[in-house]
This record gives sequence, structure tokens and C-alpha cells, in this order.
Amino acid sequence: MIGAGYMTPQQIKAQSEEIKQLTPRPFGINLFVPNAFNGSEESIRSATMSLQLIRQAINAQQPDSIDIPQFDQLVITFNEQIKVIIEEKIPICSFTFGLPSEQVIAELKQHNIILIGTATTVSEAIEIENKGIDLVVVQGSEAGGHRGNFMSNTQQSLVGLMSLIPQVVDHVNIPVIAAGGIMDSRGVMASLCLGAQGVQMGTAFLTCTESGANPVYKDAILSAKEDQIVLTRAFSGKFARGIFNQFIAHMQPYEAAFPDFPIQNALTKNLRKAAASQGNKEFMSLWSGQSPRLAKNQRASLLIHSIIKALKDA
Amino acid sequence: MIGAGYMTPQQIKAQSEEIKQLTPRPFGINLFVPNAFNGSEESIRSATMSLQLIRQAINAQQPDSIDIPQFDQLVITFNEQIKVIIEEKIPICSFTFGLPSEQVIAELKQHNIILIGTATTVSEAIEIENKGIDLVVVQGSEAGGHRGNFMSNTQQSLVGLMSLIPQVVDHVNIPVIAAGGIMDSRGVMASLCLGAQGVQMGTAFLTCTESGANPVYKDAILSAKEDQIVLTRAFSGKFARGIFNQFIAHMQPYEAAFPDFPIQNALTKNLRKAAASQGNKEFMSLWSGQSPRLAKNQRASLLIHSIIKALKDA
Repeated sequence: MIGAGYMTPQQIKAQSEEIKQLTPRPFGINLFVPNAFNGSEESIRSATMSLQLIRQAINAQQPDSIDIPQFDQLVITFNEQIKVIIEEKIPICSFTFGLPSEQVIAELKQHNIILIGTATTVSEAIEIENKGIDLVVVQGSEAGGHRGNFMSNTQQSLVGLMSLIPQVVDHVNIPVIAAGGIMDSRGVMASLCLGAQGVQMGTAFLTCTESGANPVYKDAILSAKEDQIVLTRAFSGKFARGIFNQFIAHMQPYEAAFPDFPIQNALTKNLRKAAASQGNKEFMSLWSGQSPRLAKNQRASLLIHSIIKALKDA
Repeated sequence: MIGAGYMTPQQIKAQSEEIKQLTPRPFGINLFVPNAFNGSEESIRSATMSLQLIRQAINAQQPDSIDIPQFDQLVITFNEQIKVIIEEKIPICSFTFGLPSEQVIAELKQHNIILIGTATTVSEAIEIENKGIDLVVVQGSEAGGHRGNFMSNTQQSLVGLMSLIPQVVDHVNIPVIAAGGIMDSRGVMASLCLGAQGVQMGTAFLTCTESGANPVYKDAILSAKEDQIVLTRAFSGKFARGIFNQFIAHMQPYEAAFPDFPIQNALTKNLRKAAASQGNKEFMSLWSGQSPRLAKNQRASLLIHSIIKALKDA
């Protein structure tokens, strides 16, 4: 799976061609579904002021100007991403932050592309099935990165996998893929016991040798504890789970008033980039699920083989 | 297991004798460990005013006076509860909200009573093992009722079982008992896959035929959905998970300022009792884990047998 939410259509095409050179096996692209968002001039001005204080503290330059995302433009880009997926005959396409229009779904299905939706509650999973999607990822409260809720609010969406998997399985007929805190064969086996037919693992691969994540980010996960993993909307305007750091601490009093995703994401972009280039983990977004103590710096093949071996032995 | 946190020593003795008449098998008592608490006169006055509005709305009488719990008195009662457990030779004693003094632990162990602690994070589980406790219950974020955190704060304590079980198992040598959202054989099997050696189930038994819970409370769980289960401190002053209702909704703006457990619990007691006697679920505490859709009105023996059968078949 390629997380392509922030990629241009050209980047998706390049990634797709690179993968096809490497393997004849199926692969998938994950996209962010555009949603209407709010961001008053006042909230943007206020967030910009809060961020400027942080920029000064870490000697990061204020950008000359910031392009504020426009919903219409996001929809145009999304449609271009879909077009590339069809042109490139990418076998699988998954969605986060909701579902595309019925027209887009119909078009992708016409081209025999397997579709996957992301749900955080039973109602969302039922909606995904009703829209004709082929599989559903259920994102437990344990999951790192952005919450995928699109019908429920963030608090309602924080259901642990022990509860979420069997309740969804009892209410849909499409295969369920479990996501959130799954790091090794134990989590995979548990997910299967609960009724899932597959799993989606993020943080577990992030610290692998082959991962291109910033080494500072990898080290932060490898030394984090489960009670340091928090939810914040300060980085992007949408709630996401990651390692608590100074940025989250400083922004806590203000974050409720920040503009929505993806405006806040655009406002913090150059700050995050500056922190990353300084290797300063206190001001980077360090997305992680709730199982950082299970993270290892190992080859991805070792992780996969250990899971397959455990499944065979069971 | 008998939840005896609110029982007098006399009630514990009576329960113990009743159980011994019914079975020669081992059983256990769960106690609340007293913790220092805050409750300024101002917070008590303010909470009393908010609650009075609710009392008027449901035509509940204001009590003539409310005994505000005193820490010293709670410690005396706790020590009396311990004394009865020793006198009654109760085989197992478990603790929530932390651990008793080393002296109490030593005394219980001298009498060969098996001790169980409750942890919400790895650090808490390690502390429990270090204090010489025999087993640890790990309470996932899915769990209904009060949070058992005693070193971490509430937000830090909200770790899903998919993450919590394997991380605790990797850091302690004592057996781990999983709790939170486990309702049937699927949850039991998943917990064992994650490394637990047993499970603790609450909500699953609450709706069983034999359960003495108020029928209105049972029905509320049987018709609830997972996204209606929320955390609130409005009922007791300590965060607990239950079904969202009008009481929680009305109190949300004020709950952060309410006095600590068990003061707030004492302030709401007569209101909860009045609502229960009216069968008005909107103003009762409806504790539930995050899996209400898996709850059934069935005999407890059927629940147990279905789990044992699944374990044998596996």
C-alpha cells in the first residue's frame, strides 16, 4: 500500500511505475477523500501567531507566503489522482476520511479496481458496505496518525479493536481488515480470532530498516512508551495520534481554535520541515500507534516471515 | 469475583458466607484502594447547585444532608474490609485504584490470600509486580466503569487491549488478566493470542438472566451502540465509561470543576437512586464497556459454556 494522500498525480504515476518494475504482484494506493472544511481568517491569523513563536524558538524562517488550501482545488486534485489510478491500472485503491462520490466509485469498479474503505465505527462500516466498497479497514483507537472517522466525531470514533472488530464483523458481509496497534504475530492472530480477515500495519513498518522515515522519527518511536502516545489536532487541524512532544504541549491551549485540516497542515508545513532538517523531534509530527514498545529496527522481510511462521504454526 | 468497593465489612461477610454455602470453589473480593482526594467547599457548593437543577427536573427530593466522605474514615473502612477478608479466609483479593500499603499486602500474603492488582499502563503493571502482587488485571480503554489508573492520568491510561496486553506481557513475569470489551469467545481467544492468561468480563455478565442489575440498565446496554459509550466524571468525580445520556450531556460543561471521587459520588447518590426507582435511564449511571452490541440476555452458564467450548475446539 502506498500512502498517496499528499502525492501529486505525477508522483503516484512515478511510484506505480517503480513498483511495477520491482514486482508483478498486486499493490494499492491510499487516498484522502476531500471533505469540506472551516478556517476563518481569524483562526488562521491566530494559528499563524502561535506558530510564529515556535518558529522563533527553533530559528525557523517564516515562509514568504502560505498557500491556503481551497476545497475546489482539492477535489480537482483528487479527481486527477483517481484518473492516474485508472490509467496505471493500479489493482487496489483504498480511501481514508470518508468515501468518494458514487460516480467515482462506479468508475473505479468499472475498471475492476478493488476498493477499500476506512471505518472507525459500525455505522461507518455499514455505510462503506452499502456504497459497494469491497473491503473495510476498521481503525481502532490504538491506531497512529490521523483518525479516519467521517460520520462519527473524534470521541465517538475512539473504539478499541477488542470491541470494534467483532461488532463490525457481526454487521457487515464484506471482509474486515483490522488496523491499530498491531505490531507482530500476536496482534495478527488476535485480529483473526476477533473475526478480521486481514490486518493493516503502519508503525510496525515505520521503524524497519527499509523505511525511509527520518532516523530521528524512527528513534523516537523505538524509545517511546505507550503512555506517551496522545491525540492532537495541532499539527494538521485533524485529530491524529503520535508521540507527545514540546510542540503538542505548547499548542494544547490553542489547538481547539486552530483551523481545520488541511489548512492547519499547510500552516505548520514549513515549521515541521525545519524541525526535521534540524533533527529536532520536539517540533516534528511523530505519528505512532499505541504499541511503540513493540517496535523494532528489523528488516521488513523478518517481520513478515515471523508473522507467516506464527500463522502456519497455529 | 464480588465487587465490594462500596460494601461494608458486614456485607462482605454476609456475601462470603452465602457464596460458601453455594460452592466449595475459590472466589474473590474486589476492593477500592482509598486515595487522597480534593473537594473544595466551592466545588461542592457548585456541584450541589448543578445537581439540584436535575433533581427538580425529575422531581427527586433533595436529601436533608449529605455525608461528605473523609479520607481517614475511608482508610478505617478499608482496613476493616481487609480484616473480614482474612477472617473469612477469602481465597482471592483484587484491588482497583492502586495498591494498599506494604503492611496490608504482607498481612494478606501471610494468610495465603492470592492478590490481584489492576493496571492501565506498563508502568503500573511493573509497579504491581514489584510490590509482590500475584497477578495483574490490565484494563484496556474499552473497559466499562471506573478507570483504574493510579500512576498515569486518565488520558494516558486509555490504551486499547490490542496494544496494552502484549506490551505488559513483555515487561512482567506475573500472569496477565485482560479486561475491557471482552464479551464472548472471540475476545477470550484474542486475549490469549496477545499473551494474557485469563480475562475479566463485566458488561457481558451484567445483562445475563441471573444478574441483579436494574432491568432498565440491562435494556439500555442491550440496545446501545459502541459510539454511544463515553467517558464521564460527572457521576462520581472519577472518570468512568458508560452509555451517554441526558445527565452526562447536561453536566458536560461543569464536570471538570466537580469535586473528586468519592465526594461527587456521594453528592449524586440520592439523585441516581431516585432515577433508578423511576426507571429513568437518562439520569442513572449506565456503566458499560465499548462492546454493547455483543451483549445478550442469556444465562451466565450459556456464556461460560460457549467460551469453554470454543477454547476446547481451538
